[in-house]
Formats: sequence, structure tokens, C-alpha cells
Amino acid sequence: MPTFEPQDPNFEVRVRESFARQKVMETIGASLTTVSPGEVEVELPFRDDLTQQHGFLHAAVVTAIVDSACGYAAMTLMPPDATVLTIEYKVNFVSPATGDRMIASGHVTKPGRTITVCWGDVVAQSDGQEKLIATMLGTMMTLRDEQARGR
Amino acid sequence: MPTFEPQDPNFEVRVRESFARQKVMETIGASLTTVSPGEVEVELPFRDDLTQQHGFLHAAVVTAIVDSACGYAAMTLMPPDATVLTIEYKVNFVSPATGDRMIASGHVTKPGRTITVCWGDVVAQSDGQEKLIATMLGTMMTLRDEQARGR
Amino acid sequence: MPTFEPQDPNFEVRVRESFARQKVMETIGASLTTVSPGEVEVELPFRDDLTQQHGFLHAAVVTAIVDSACGYAAMTLMPPDATVLTIEYKVNFVSPATGDRMIASGHVTKPGRTITVCWGDVVAQSDGQEKLIATMLGTMMTLRDEQARGR
Amino acid sequence: MPTFEPQDPNFEVRVRESFARQKVMETIGASLTTVSPGEVEVELPFRDDLTQQHGFLHAAVVTAIVDSACGYAAMTLMPPDATVLTIEYKVNFVSPATGDRMIASGHVTKPGRTITVCWGDVVAQSDGQEKLIATMLGTMMTLRDEQARGR
Repeated sequence: MPTFEPQDPNFEVRVRESFARQKVMETIGASLTTVSPGEVEVELPFRDDLTQQHGFLHAAVVTAIVDSACGYAAMTLMPPDATVLTIEYKVNFVSPATGDRMIASGHVTKPGRTITVCWGDVVAQSDGQEKLIATMLGTMMTLRDEQARGR
Repeated sequence: MPTFEPQDPNFEVRVRESFARQKVMETIGASLTTVSPGEVEVELPFRDDLTQQHGFLHAAVVTAIVDSACGYAAMTLMPPDATVLTIEYKVNFVSPATGDRMIASGHVTKPGRTITVCWGDVVAQSDGQEKLIATMLGTMMTLRDEQARGR
Repeated sequence: MPTFEPQDPNFEVRVRESFARQKVMETIGASLTTVSPGEVEVELPFRDDLTQQHGFLHAAVVTAIVDSACGYAAMTLMPPDATVLTIEYKVNFVSPATGDRMIASGHVTKPGRTITVCWGDVVAQSDGQEKLIATMLGTMMTLRDEQARGR
Repeated sequence: MPTFEPQDPNFEVRVRESFARQKVMETIGASLTTVSPGEVEVELPFRDDLTQQHGFLHAAVVTAIVDSACGYAAMTLMPPDATVLTIEYKVNFVSPATGDRMIASGHVTKPGRTITVCWGDVVAQSDGQEKLIATMLGTMMTLRDEQARGR
């Protein structure tokens, strides 16, 4: 695992404030747990109103938390006035998303001035056991805050 | 555009019943509009509680509707006792997801006995204008219903 | 299909010169056929020394031509002093790559100042018939020439 | 890292024989180094005739070795009469592919009866130093040998 040196010592506050502005995270009940340089975790308790036709969490709900984990992992390494934009992601779903809660972890593979590549995993926790649900590889972009708003 | 011959003349009923069981679609306010062989449309009015930190719809919400459109496009061509599973998808986000409503369309690129490849687009409609928001390429799998439940 | 206005009237010469510098294209026997704004075609005759274990063209050979087609499709819309870099791509393989020749076409989905999203297809031609082999969705980046060399 | 139990004790011989039939690997000069359960390495010395327009190895050449590494990593865990097919992959390119040689490693994320998900990395080695060049996430399929030939 590489270790990363954040450019902004205040990265954690910045990430937590941005996450708090993502209304969809409150809507689905997701919360930000760990924030460290290049690594972020997001947790989501299982909820019946987020399921697909077989009673598992919908793929997009799983994607929501791993995208947020990856995007904010990228943001921990960005300059103070920057924000993060998801250019694209690819997610593989490897087991049905069922269990007590989902833990998404996002990790920076390679930070860059403009482009940051990240990977993430989602595991389901149930009765103290963990099972891999999904894995993601995505591309994030550094945006100055005003660009993000006006894009 | 290829044209496809459905194996199950009852495909539309089957797709609509399955979509109706996706509780997350009701939670976010998405509805199934068109269902034809190899092509499905899903519509989502903009809602403030589904946004990310800059007030646009979260990438995963955009993904939710285009994944459903693609998955059900695949299902229109499957046998009567089969259901669909998303193996993986890749989505590119090309403009901020803002506007009155999002229209996701899913299309079958290549149907297969086990694997069906699909592509989809999401456009935002506002004041009679359309703008491309996202584009997806994904892989769907045919499952017999009992497999899907027990996987 | 969207139509695009090139920024550089000399785009075709620039693309053809760049393609000619891709030594791997000569090594595998690929040639650039059509170059128009936002659309490029690359052709590859079947060759036995490019096959995988079942006698079909290797996935990466199919990828080589559709990546070049997409990258150069993006480059047709870039400024005169810019070159193109592939950030990432995703390719689905839908039929065995066999036939007389492969035709890869690359298309711009959405051009941008920094990021251009492209999609592409590869078809096999044999005895006047065409069959879809692969489909791609990728992300290209605009680089000033000196950046590309020094990155 | 998960550890995996191969179904076929003869997996290494089977993988090496299949790799030897991939003529494109000989054409580009790639060789199979390590083969263990769920993990495979492929090595490629730098060669000028495999480059793109800036003198780096072409993205598809990098893809060729990491796809082979991932596909054969999947095959190590398959039954004796099975072979592997790449359904799709996504590759991010994070640094120019230059150096003395490229080392691609493929790893199984999740094996399955039909679908196996793999990830892989490519590093460039030069003067005893390593640098990450590319990272991949892909989907492999188990095929009985006769299916693969006749598909």
C-alpha cells in the first residue's frame, strides 16, 4: 500500500464538510466514518426501501457509497481550494448486497494534478462476518471550486 | 440500430412487474416509461434530496436509472422464466445532472444466452431542451428466477 | 449523431502524421482509413501471428485498433498544438475476432477542453458480411505536445 | 489477500500450455513467469516496434499483458476441462509505459462457476526501480473447451 502526503493539513475537515452537503447521503442513510490521506470509508445500514426486485440493495446504492468513498479519498490529496468530480467509474458486483450494513472503502491508486485514479471495495457485514459485494475502479478530476459550480 | 425478436411475447408485463418490485425506484421517484424489444426508458424528475455537494444529482442516482433501463432492456429479450443481473457497468459523466427531469434509455448491443451487453444514455430535459449527462456500457447476465433469489 | 466543428482545419493531416508515428500500428498491419470530425476508422487484416489460444485475434489487438480509432476521433476536435492521451477505456468482447479483416470505428460522444469521451465498435468483415466483435467506451485527455512527451 | 484452492492440481501445466498457444505473446515478446493459484505474472521487455506516437509502449500492448495475466489467473482456479474467455475489461493508464521491461500481474478478486472477477497492475522496471503504469479491472468467463472453439 502506498502512503500519501496530503497537500492540505485541513483535508479531513474539508472532506467532512463536503460529504455533509451531499443530501443524497442523508436520504439513503450513509455516513462517513474514516478519513485518512488517500483512504476514506463510508457506511450504510441495510434499508428495505433501497432494494431491487430480489430484496438486495440496488447496484446503484452500492455504487453511491463506493463512489463517495473513492471521490473523497481523492479529495484528501487535493489542494485546499479544490474539489473533486467523478469523471467515470466501473463497478463489478460479485455477491448479492445483503447483510446488516455495507462498508465501502475508497483508496487512491495514483494521485495527479488533474486526474486521480482510485479503487474501492464494498463489503457486507453480518453477525461479525464480512463478504465482498462489489469492487470499483474509477477516475476522479481535480476542480477548483468555482469550476465545479459553474461547469 | 439492430432490431430484436423477443423470446417471450409477454416481455413487457414481466419487465413492468419486476420494475415495480424495485423499491429503490419508488424511493427516488423514478418511473418506467417505454418498454420495447431491446430498449427501455426510465424517467426521474429532479429532486433536491438526491443531490451531491454542488446541487446536481449524485452520479449514483444517474447510474440507478440508466442501470435499470439497461438491465430491463436486456430482460425484454430473455426467456419467460429468466431474470436479469447486473454483472458490471462503466459510466462516464459528461455534464452536471441538473434540469427538470432525467431520461435514461437502455439499449441492447448484443444479446446472448448467458451474457447480454448493453449501452445507455441519460439526458436532462429542461424547457424543451435536452443535454447529454452520462453514458454507460454494461454487462448483464441471464438468471433463472430461483438462481437470482438464492445466489 | 451529433456533428462537430473542428477547431483546426488541418486536423486530418495532423491525425495522419500522428498515426504514422505509432510504430505498433505498422507492426500489427493496421491502417488509418477515414478521418472526419469526431469520427475515425482503422482497419486490420486478420493475421495468424496476432491470435490467442483458440485462433482468434487477441482481445488486445482488437483493443489496439479501437483505442486508436477513438483517440484520433478525439484528436480531430482538439486545438492545433494538442495531442491526445488515453486516460482509460473499457471494452466488451461480444464475438470471436475472426474474419478477413477488422474495422474499428471511433466516435466522439462529448468533446471537452480537457476530457473527451468516446465510444467505438469493431466489426469483422468476411465475404461481404459484417459481425460486431467488440464495443468500447473510453476517456481521452487533451495534452499540449510538450506535456505528452515529458509526462 | 485471499488465498485460493485450485480445483485442478495440474493448473500450472494447463495455463502454460494455453499461454504458449497465444501467438501474439510470441509476436510481442511477452513471457509467462509466475503461475500460482489466483495469481499470474507476465513480463514484456520494452521494444521500439510496439510504441505509440511519443515513443512509449502503446496502451494496447500494456493491456495485452495484463489481460493475459488476469485471464490466466482466473484459469488457475477453473476445472480441468475449462478455458477462459475475457468478457470485458477496463484499464486506467497512469504513467507513460517506458522502462526496461513491463511486469503485469493478474489477481483473482472473486472466482465463480461462470464469472470470475480479476484485477491487475502493470509496473515498469528500470535500473532496479518500479513505477506503476496501468491498473485493470476485468470480467472473465469459464468456458468448456468445445464452447470456446465453436462459440
